[in-house]
Amino acid sequence: MARISSADLFNLATRTMLAAGATEWSATATARALVYADERGLSSHGVARLPMYVAQLRNGRVDPKASPAIVASRNAAVLVDAADGMAFPACELAIETLINRARENGSAVVSVKRSHHLGAGAWHLEAIGAARMVGVAFSNTPAAMPAWGGRHAVFGTNPVAAVFPRRDGKPLMIDLSLSNVARGKIMVAAREGKPIPEGWATSRDGKPTTDAKVALEGMMLPVGGAKGAMLALVVELLAAALAGANFGYEAGSFLTEDGEKSRVGHLFWAIDPGALTGSEAYLSRVEALIEAMLEDPDVRLPGERRQALADAAMRDGIEIPDALLTQLQALAA
Amino acid sequence: MARISSADLFNLATRTMLAAGATEWSATATARALVYADERGLSSHGVARLPMYVAQLRNGRVDPKASPAIVASRNAAVLVDAADGMAFPACELAIETLINRARENGSAVVSVKRSHHLGAGAWHLEAIGAARMVGVAFSNTPAAMPAWGGRHAVFGTNPVAAVFPRRDGKPLMIDLSLSNVARGKIMVAAREGKPIPEGWATSRDGKPTTDAKVALEGMMLPVGGAKGAMLALVVELLAAALAGANFGYEAGSFLTEDGEKSRVGHLFWAIDPGALTGSEAYLSRVEALIEAMLEDPDVRLPGERRQALADAAMRDGIEIPDALLTQLQALAA
Repeated sequence: MARISSADLFNLATRTMLAAGATEWSATATARALVYADERGLSSHGVARLPMYVAQLRNGRVDPKASPAIVASRNAAVLVDAADGMAFPACELAIETLINRARENGSAVVSVKRSHHLGAGAWHLEAIGAARMVGVAFSNTPAAMPAWGGRHAVFGTNPVAAVFPRRDGKPLMIDLSLSNVARGKIMVAAREGKPIPEGWATSRDGKPTTDAKVALEGMMLPVGGAKGAMLALVVELLAAALAGANFGYEAGSFLTEDGEKSRVGHLFWAIDPGALTGSEAYLSRVEALIEAMLEDPDVRLPGERRQALADAAMRDGIEIPDALLTQLQALAA
Repeated sequence: MARISSADLFNLATRTMLAAGATEWSATATARALVYADERGLSSHGVARLPMYVAQLRNGRVDPKASPAIVASRNAAVLVDAADGMAFPACELAIETLINRARENGSAVVSVKRSHHLGAGAWHLEAIGAARMVGVAFSNTPAAMPAWGGRHAVFGTNPVAAVFPRRDGKPLMIDLSLSNVARGKIMVAAREGKPIPEGWATSRDGKPTTDAKVALEGMMLPVGGAKGAMLALVVELLAAALAGANFGYEAGSFLTEDGEKSRVGHLFWAIDPGALTGSEAYLSRVEALIEAMLEDPDVRLPGERRQALADAAMRDGIEIPDALLTQLQALAA
């Protein structure tokens, strides 16, 4: 493993994007989001994504010159068109707009259409938390899970993230996807020749399986069974139907060079506590709940572990596999 | 079982509430919500609740004369004070206000504080669906589940409901709580002397149990383990912290005569598709997703079964246990 500072990794990621023809905006917005994930131990959403992003920028599945723009607006509801570019500049525009509209109106939503990989949902919410507002993010993703009772993949794993500012220190940050487990866990079991628990995945034809190798060809299953499948449907509709974006079963994969464009959708929602119970009352309520949770010594606050990793990364640098670093340096050259 | 028409059950429920001193508004709003649930086979949220509501109206835990009012407002964010009365009139005011604000601003939220039992979440969303808007409802409830890793109940089972209008016919309606199973399933197992699966509940001191009798003294567990616990936290904060309402661990039970006031919170959110991708585009997207889901013959659309029950109930009447009917007639006299 190589160790590299956040600033150097940001520069390398920016140059990698620029070398693939990306606009300055797309390059820097993407680099910021990826470094944020790597700092927090989310390497699956960090610069390890760059080689595939670059491949898709070069073959036209993602437009490197796309210019995201607001295409519909009514006070507290705005639609941003990512214009088949990377998600990150479009989401930057979306979040900036959202914060202004939520401040003005007490709450607001911004949808994003014709978009691509959201990356770590938490990244987009950081600015909302810093603006002392509550934020929620929804995205759909290429199909990986069946509807409940179904035998083909319709929904994505559909991440949901939420941020709740606190009186002092970092906000509470929740970030999860609606599959039972991350696909990576199944890949590990397959490599080790171990079975997986029931409820994680199905075979290619939609039958429950405990065989990790069979599962890798099949579908992920939703967290919590039927209830998780219902929540995945809700996220699919909130993120894609309101934006006029592709559903999971229509969206080209983020993880293969070839295929259709992804054109997924996101929905961001912000609420200013000052417009409801009031900022001070809201902050007192949050601290009361945290105190009640922490009465039990084994309870950990969401986002705490990732923040500790980020603090360490900003002090000591980020660990990146040597091969990935070499690959990025070649792509950036 | 007795069979009674929706209209007669509504009249009986209204008279029962009025006899307990409720205002006309509270009586009719409550009766409408309860009959809606009974029509849909949700008897646990129907008129079976009335004897306990009446007891709490009579002993002052719920104020029969409460007058819900808007206490904060900024364009797309409104706070309603249920004023320690029944939830239903306050939610009627909240939803009516929400529809107007969302129409004007493209999206809006309305919080409710000092409230009581939400009843069936779907009920409140019917009017939003009828107004051709997307709606989401969140509520916290008296504590029944621990934080992840915790040993005492902090969160409620925290229902989430969502409505998505369709081009023709009834909207998609999703309505679920974030506990793994309803408490009623554990009560059935306890009566039959059967064990319950792991992951349903804990003992009183927070240890996992498969003994249904032990579980009845203990806590419910969240759907999907850690992810469900995170979602329950999100709902707790959205519903209660923004409203300045009681958290689950502070809220008196809905199910006992005595105790503290409940004073839970709700959050309703509506989005006008016309402000984002446009109404026609949204409706086409929803139909496309439904078509993809129904390619698999075993997939059922959410809300479909309950709507079929409602159609039958409106034709044939509602079945009510004889003892309950007698009890309500006595309370209404």
